[in-house]
Amino acid sequence: METFVIEQTENEKTLLRKDVFRPWPKTRRFVKVCLEGIKRVLFRVGDDWYFLFALGVIMAMISFTMDFTVSRMLNAHRWLQQELKGNMLLRYLSWTVYPIALVAFSTGFAQSITPHSGGSGIPEMKTILTGVILEEYLTIKNFGAKVVGLTCTLAAGSTMFLGKVGPFVHLSSMIAAYLGRMRSSVTGDYENKSKEHEMLVAAAAVGVSTVFGAPISGVLFSVEVMSSHFAIRNYWRGFFSAACGAFMFRVLAVFNSEQETISAVFKTNFKISFPFDLPETFFFMILGAICGVVGCAYLFCQRWLLGYVRINRFTAKLLSSDKPVYSALVALLMASITFPESLGQFLASRLSMKELLTSLFDNRTWWTLSQNASLERPAEVDPNNLWLEWANPQFTIFGTLLFFIIMKFWMFILATTLPMPAGYFMPVFVFGAAIGRLVGETVSYIFPNGINSDGVINPIIPGGYALAGAAAYSGSVTHSLSTALLAFEATGQIAHILPVILAVLVANAITQKFQPSFYDGTIIVKKLPYLPRIRSRQINSYKVNTETFMNTDVKVLSTEASFDDVLMVMTSSEDLEFPVVENTESLILVGKVMRSQLRRFLETHESQQHLQMSDSKITCQGTLKDGCSIEPVTFQLSTWTSLHEAHHLFELLSLQHVFVTKFGKIVGSVTRNELRKAIEGLANPK
Amino acid sequence: METFVIEQTENEKTLLRKDVFRPWPKTRRFVKVCLEGIKRVLFRVGDDWYFLFALGVIMAMISFTMDFTVSRMLNAHRWLQQELKGNMLLRYLSWTVYPIALVAFSTGFAQSITPHSGGSGIPEMKTILTGVILEEYLTIKNFGAKVVGLTCTLAAGSTMFLGKVGPFVHLSSMIAAYLGRMRSSVTGDYENKSKEHEMLVAAAAVGVSTVFGAPISGVLFSVEVMSSHFAIRNYWRGFFSAACGAFMFRVLAVFNSEQETISAVFKTNFKISFPFDLPETFFFMILGAICGVVGCAYLFCQRWLLGYVRINRFTAKLLSSDKPVYSALVALLMASITFPESLGQFLASRLSMKELLTSLFDNRTWWTLSQNASLERPAEVDPNNLWLEWANPQFTIFGTLLFFIIMKFWMFILATTLPMPAGYFMPVFVFGAAIGRLVGETVSYIFPNGINSDGVINPIIPGGYALAGAAAYSGSVTHSLSTALLAFEATGQIAHILPVILAVLVANAITQKFQPSFYDGTIIVKKLPYLPRIRSRQINSYKVNTETFMNTDVKVLSTEASFDDVLMVMTSSEDLEFPVVENTESLILVGKVMRSQLRRFLETHESQQHLQMSDSKITCQGTLKDGCSIEPVTFQLSTWTSLHEAHHLFELLSLQHVFVTKFGKIVGSVTRNELRKAIEGLANPK
Repeated sequence: METFVIEQTENEKTLLRKDVFRPWPKTRRFVKVCLEGIKRVLFRVGDDWYFLFALGVIMAMISFTMDFTVSRMLNAHRWLQQELKGNMLLRYLSWTVYPIALVAFSTGFAQSITPHSGGSGIPEMKTILTGVILEEYLTIKNFGAKVVGLTCTLAAGSTMFLGKVGPFVHLSSMIAAYLGRMRSSVTGDYENKSKEHEMLVAAAAVGVSTVFGAPISGVLFSVEVMSSHFAIRNYWRGFFSAACGAFMFRVLAVFNSEQETISAVFKTNFKISFPFDLPETFFFMILGAICGVVGCAYLFCQRWLLGYVRINRFTAKLLSSDKPVYSALVALLMASITFPESLGQFLASRLSMKELLTSLFDNRTWWTLSQNASLERPAEVDPNNLWLEWANPQFTIFGTLLFFIIMKFWMFILATTLPMPAGYFMPVFVFGAAIGRLVGETVSYIFPNGINSDGVINPIIPGGYALAGAAAYSGSVTHSLSTALLAFEATGQIAHILPVILAVLVANAITQKFQPSFYDGTIIVKKLPYLPRIRSRQINSYKVNTETFMNTDVKVLSTEASFDDVLMVMTSSEDLEFPVVENTESLILVGKVMRSQLRRFLETHESQQHLQMSDSKITCQGTLKDGCSIEPVTFQLSTWTSLHEAHHLFELLSLQHVFVTKFGKIVGSVTRNELRKAIEGLANPK
Repeated sequence: METFVIEQTENEKTLLRKDVFRPWPKTRRFVKVCLEGIKRVLFRVGDDWYFLFALGVIMAMISFTMDFTVSRMLNAHRWLQQELKGNMLLRYLSWTVYPIALVAFSTGFAQSITPHSGGSGIPEMKTILTGVILEEYLTIKNFGAKVVGLTCTLAAGSTMFLGKVGPFVHLSSMIAAYLGRMRSSVTGDYENKSKEHEMLVAAAAVGVSTVFGAPISGVLFSVEVMSSHFAIRNYWRGFFSAACGAFMFRVLAVFNSEQETISAVFKTNFKISFPFDLPETFFFMILGAICGVVGCAYLFCQRWLLGYVRINRFTAKLLSSDKPVYSALVALLMASITFPESLGQFLASRLSMKELLTSLFDNRTWWTLSQNASLERPAEVDPNNLWLEWANPQFTIFGTLLFFIIMKFWMFILATTLPMPAGYFMPVFVFGAAIGRLVGETVSYIFPNGINSDGVINPIIPGGYALAGAAAYSGSVTHSLSTALLAFEATGQIAHILPVILAVLVANAITQKFQPSFYDGTIIVKKLPYLPRIRSRQINSYKVNTETFMNTDVKVLSTEASFDDVLMVMTSSEDLEFPVVENTESLILVGKVMRSQLRRFLETHESQQHLQMSDSKITCQGTLKDGCSIEPVTFQLSTWTSLHEAHHLFELLSLQHVFVTKFGKIVGSVTRNELRKAIEGLANPK
């Protein structure tokens, strides 16, 4: 029909003559063809891109809305505190009741919907990405619980000292899974395991990048934390989605007039012409070592406490039946300590998490400032002089920083035991910044005129140390290097790149040597499936063959297996899939059959038997071959495969269960359990 | 002996009493024990770290020395030009003869030592990392040829418009291979394939990072360009080594008084309080699209010309017999064009590569500058006003920039055909910066007071566009995203992160759709083994089974094979390894045997036969089983493995040749050739 109209140029000309505003028909037709070509190309690129774009934008909007809500709630609390200036008791009550109520509600709400919504979610996501199926973690029910719970947690402010990175990774994954299901229901495509995996990897990147507005480090951090290998094609997807998310997140801030233009989340203003002197590199490396040691101590204590609250009679009882009460009690303790009229004045407790970080990244030297200003604490927090919250005439800034570090060390460990949605990255980042600030202020106190004071005075910038400390400490706790980049992206300055990287490397070297990462530690405590890594010095892993550690007790089914054979195998083993062999003598592997298939086989067979028994006396001779679909085995190990290769394959291909064959015969099977034991055997040889 | 001395505390005390400057014997002993503990720990971490450290430091020293030599040679040339002010002919001669001599020497020297030293080396390294063995590319002979040749190439300056990234990746890999051989000869460890691979991956990162002093993007760029998958453990090694290299590289610059302290290689000075306005993001995306389109055109022309010079009678003859003459002729053409008194004055040809980049990243607006200053070209290049080289009263800066872009487009393509050691990344980076600068200057010309000119004037910074252009164009040509990060690390400013990433994404989306990357293109032209990627929309790859594309013509050997059987198989096939089966009827795969083993078997067998024939008439019945070591097959495909899975496995495990079995019987084999054909079959279904 359309071509017919186009060919009728005569008619068209008449139409054109009527419409004086549409000149150049040929050009317009050309443009039209071009546009259609572009449209076709765009649609051919595949809906993946639309999907990733949507994921980024949705997460950015959620992140922005949550930040907005939380900041309003924090302001309301601050206003209340100011209004109650006269009455100390009322102030104390308002200071403590507010976080208690929020935390108790967060715990109660999240736990009542689903017990899986507690904690950060990254350990579980990491387990899912290794191929283990934890369906309930990605349901949309979980989403609501996590969003509401997290908002309340964050609104409790720096009293609770918790963040949002982990839950955002989890939220993002849930949305990706949901969008994926929606897409496959619309397009009618069959659900694709590897596609799903790709999307989850991208989702993790989006989660990180929408919190910090940091696209590159979002991708890198999620890759480092979540997986042991990654494909460059996934890196692309993550990059695209994270860039969309971060861009949207920052644009929303501009639209909301929070900022004049797109800029870093925690913008700094260091002197970039001379950021640091060469000898300072040494202090940065010492800072890295300090962060590494403190990181080890933190990881050890945290794992110990997580285990202890499950053993201790009192807490275990509370945690099993009255989770909100447990949360409320912890919140009461924390809020009492941070009450600004008591110990809180040495903890800068009036600052929110964001203000804490901004104040620590201050480009000025606090020690110099504190000598030239009155240290009278203002009645309200002064946004341009946040450092005043840290100043104290008796304690000096060194005292407050040290006190902050000591107190927050155990308070944060205690906070991680709370069973509510919360992220643990941001507090670690702030804590690291405080360590860095302390070291930086000390160095600047020792060398007030800079180190090379010949002629030009280049004073030391303690903010740079805070940056390095934040990157090194968070890197050491999470066993990742990309926190260095995260620090630059979040602050918008990259001048300190080399010393920060050195600090992160030193901190990581120490922690990786002595402790598993925060996320691995949680996986171990929560008893999720976990595959330890093979260290490069364990060269025995090349020499140990699959034959020595495989599970040889494999129940096989022949293609001719009868009802009774199947029943016997089913009752004697809990495996999810069974190997099918040609016959029980030759043991040549021909395929596998799922447990669910076998169950159905038994059911239909049973009913047939019933039917036939009533009919006649001839028993049905239905065999496995006829009653079940036998799936082909696309991948198998050989008995000569080394432990190193097997480990590599399990990691690369996210395998869970593999059959081992020798000359085509099945001789065993390997799961992550066998592998784990074999690797542990390498580390502790008898 | 030592323990004995320690136990003799009485003696020790006497010794201590004599030595008054050594108090606290217990403390010192404690410290000593601690130090020994640390030493033990450090050595237990493994020599990997020392090795990586050495690699980084050596490459940094080579890079610094080369930069130093090149800058001296360029200065000498510049001085000569200035001294010859009076005589135009002499100036022309000195301008042209200098690069001609250097280029001809570079070509002749490198080619006379080894023909493999030409070009960038990245395509070959990429092929090596996929598991193909190209021994001769990593010999130390190649190293000398490449270092000397590259120094001469770089000393020819911006006339030749070539860089050093690619050769540095190659050099670094050669050093890593050499150090690896040295280590295994010292420690007596058996040479380890996977360890070697890990080291080469780290070496690639070191190569990039020591050129730009950019550790993070060095790692990322090398990962993106070199491999399709990577392991996080390799990422660490690369990071450590690259950080050492970059740090050393910058420290050397400080020691040489080039710089006051450690800072970026191409330091910029943009206004970071307001780097860009929100609507400018749109222009950045247009810039990305322009870069993508130009990138496509460049890649197409480059591949065409590379092929054409091999077909054209004249150039083909020159390239086969007189490579230096070919180089000299091209250099003569280029130098004549860039002669500063003729066309060169519109090409800023007096600037070196580094000055070109620094001038393009200038934070000032050239258009504004050029209206307030006299555009008289200074007799010498003014280091503080490099932009004057771009200014021209008649042409205006827009004219010179456009002319530069057009001329350098084909001149650089011509330069890539030269058979001498040279890198192609830096010129691409500079070219992209020029495109970006042109767009930036145009935008700033259209909106002289910034876009949102209500009240505060925030002028547009064309330098930011130059940054984005450099990242986007180099990203599109190399198909990588980390060029964005490279641009930040090299300039020391990260404020433009979001628009730059958007530009890079847009440029990449366009180029990846229509052209293979620069490195893949070279691999295709050079006919190196190459595995195309499966696009995500080719979902048929999940449905095609190995059975349909495997090579079924497999020569098998039974364990009982005799001399004649082996001889027949050897003569009928060129394969490097042969499957060994139980017997030729059952075809059950029991192992494999290498061609070299078979050759030895034939040789020994032959001599035995001769021996026995002279002895008696009884012929030897030696079979394969007795004469050869049959290696186990640790990995095999099944006939049901999908194309997607097979491709994935080949990429992940760097496979070259895999046997396909069905119920334990060998039915075929798959190499990268079969896979490539199958993937091409997906793209062009009949």
